[in-house]
Amino acid sequence: MSRIAAPAVLDRARTIVTPALRAAVARLSPELRLPAEYHLGWVDLDGRPATGSGGKHVRAALALLSAAAVGADERVGVPGAVAIELVHNFSLLHDDVIDVDRERRHRTTVWAAFGVGPAITVGDALHTLAIQVLLEPGTPEAVRAVSALADGTSRMIAGETVDIVFETRDDVTWDECLEMSSAKTGALLACAAELGAILAGAPAARVASLGAYGLHLGLAFQAVDDVLGIWGETATTGKPVFGDLRQQKKTLPITAALARANGNLAELRSLLEASRDDEAAAARAADLIEKFGGRQATEEAAAEHLGAALTALRAAQPVPAVEAELAELAQYVVERQQ
Amino acid sequence: MSRIAAPAVLDRARTIVTPALRAAVARLSPELRLPAEYHLGWVDLDGRPATGSGGKHVRAALALLSAAAVGADERVGVPGAVAIELVHNFSLLHDDVIDVDRERRHRTTVWAAFGVGPAITVGDALHTLAIQVLLEPGTPEAVRAVSALADGTSRMIAGETVDIVFETRDDVTWDECLEMSSAKTGALLACAAELGAILAGAPAARVASLGAYGLHLGLAFQAVDDVLGIWGETATTGKPVFGDLRQQKKTLPITAALARANGNLAELRSLLEASRDDEAAAARAADLIEKFGGRQATEEAAAEHLGAALTALRAAQPVPAVEAELAELAQYVVERQQ
Repeated sequence: MSRIAAPAVLDRARTIVTPALRAAVARLSPELRLPAEYHLGWVDLDGRPATGSGGKHVRAALALLSAAAVGADERVGVPGAVAIELVHNFSLLHDDVIDVDRERRHRTTVWAAFGVGPAITVGDALHTLAIQVLLEPGTPEAVRAVSALADGTSRMIAGETVDIVFETRDDVTWDECLEMSSAKTGALLACAAELGAILAGAPAARVASLGAYGLHLGLAFQAVDDVLGIWGETATTGKPVFGDLRQQKKTLPITAALARANGNLAELRSLLEASRDDEAAAARAADLIEKFGGRQATEEAAAEHLGAALTALRAAQPVPAVEAELAELAQYVVERQQ
Repeated sequence: MSRIAAPAVLDRARTIVTPALRAAVARLSPELRLPAEYHLGWVDLDGRPATGSGGKHVRAALALLSAAAVGADERVGVPGAVAIELVHNFSLLHDDVIDVDRERRHRTTVWAAFGVGPAITVGDALHTLAIQVLLEPGTPEAVRAVSALADGTSRMIAGETVDIVFETRDDVTWDECLEMSSAKTGALLACAAELGAILAGAPAARVASLGAYGLHLGLAFQAVDDVLGIWGETATTGKPVFGDLRQQKKTLPITAALARANGNLAELRSLLEASRDDEAAAARAADLIEKFGGRQATEEAAAEHLGAALTALRAAQPVPAVEAELAELAQYVVERQQ
């Protein structure tokens, strides 16, 4: 994979969406606001302004481009972008508690800094805030958007739950893993890619095609995440080395390697089990997964879903300049190193 | 306090609302559905039908009577009742994780039985499901109801967060505690008392009066809970003995006693601190709190807010038979032993 520059739309999304996101978070009571703003990279633990990374803003960018794709001003997508970023960050706050992860985006996680209680309630608060922000105008488009957001959120939560359940299973198949990723990651990216168009009042078929683009983009995104979760460098990803192996996650490279390990199946299984608290075992497991083709299969899956995303995108008949930006964003998602 | 019979509306609410609540929960994926149904008392840990208590259904009863109070059939309030029970139970699932409580309603809590991960995601799933159920009809009344539910949920989460923060402070005042209870408990009961009327299309002033009734009822409810949290019997409440003291909660009896302890302030503070892991200290702290009038002040506050609830209720000009039931429900909330 070559390193490519981040598409201009990510910076634009950050610039356009951050003021609205800040205004939304400012509605929280002080006890919730500090950990929320800390999590988003805006302040340090004492509330002093900080310049930490609040994430890549892929979902916000999708919501803006989704509005522009159907001919509206991309600012029409702002409430959708704010809501989707709030839901995404609520899920990260809860995931860090669930996975007992002490670091995200090169900073101490909220539960590790403020306690499990605040990390859970701040996540809950962002969840509710997303609904409030999106519903506020009370227009038919806003109501449709909230309905789509709730459906996407519901699928995401179901996918996360399956992801947790998979940690205690050692016979998860590639297809089961793909279905889980489709829910855990695909559903919210699909929703992001729909929200702008919904807010712009686009017809259902166009919204559905944009959603299909987002779903495949989400599957490609998760495949790349699965590769980075084993072979990514902490300095770049901000996540622990061999994190997915130590966490006993069942990701695409692992399920692919298990299916192809044949005579080495017992060895791979025992290395995966030992990876929980043995970094050397995790390193050997990573090598075996690569040797058995787990990495290559996952990279091929990412490329395949990138292709499917671009096909779905064309079906949405987007404004050509916006189609180019959505295609560039998809390309970036697959080629990113973090 | 004398023991009074549970009002008929609680059984009626259970009968009317449970089928709709079951239908809503049945929409969850299997991994979420089992722990959700277990939490609600419908199945045991293996998914076999059970007859555990799913709670008192006070909030569901309020939503039904709220519709009837403004002249509608109480069934108009059913989606509100389902949504409010889902939000209430989402908050219980998360609270049990936060408070590390291993028992609720005389059963093992979801995090203790299924793990912290599923307990958090099942809570999240019920949170989203509440919005989906209530928004589904897409009518202006449904949109207004979702907006009220999100506002109530938002206040509840803020109150819970303050409750957590208070655990690490020893100078919480009575007024601060009352304000926290108003958010933590009052907001959702106010919302329950509004939802039926909102769904019935009642004018804003009538909805507001019913909300004020619910808010004061919530304050009375929390005051009684605060008494039970120290002097309640596990066999009746299903909660650990001296639970609030061991958890370092700052409840009304404690803040009242601290304000009146005068020369014994240092002794009371040190007993409260020791209550964390010393049951004998907790028992002595409970005696001192009672001696300094903390229990009496809290029981007086419950009675006072019961009175305020009934005054607000009259202002809503409810259908007389329904006013009687809402008054009976309020009376029960204050006189209950569990």
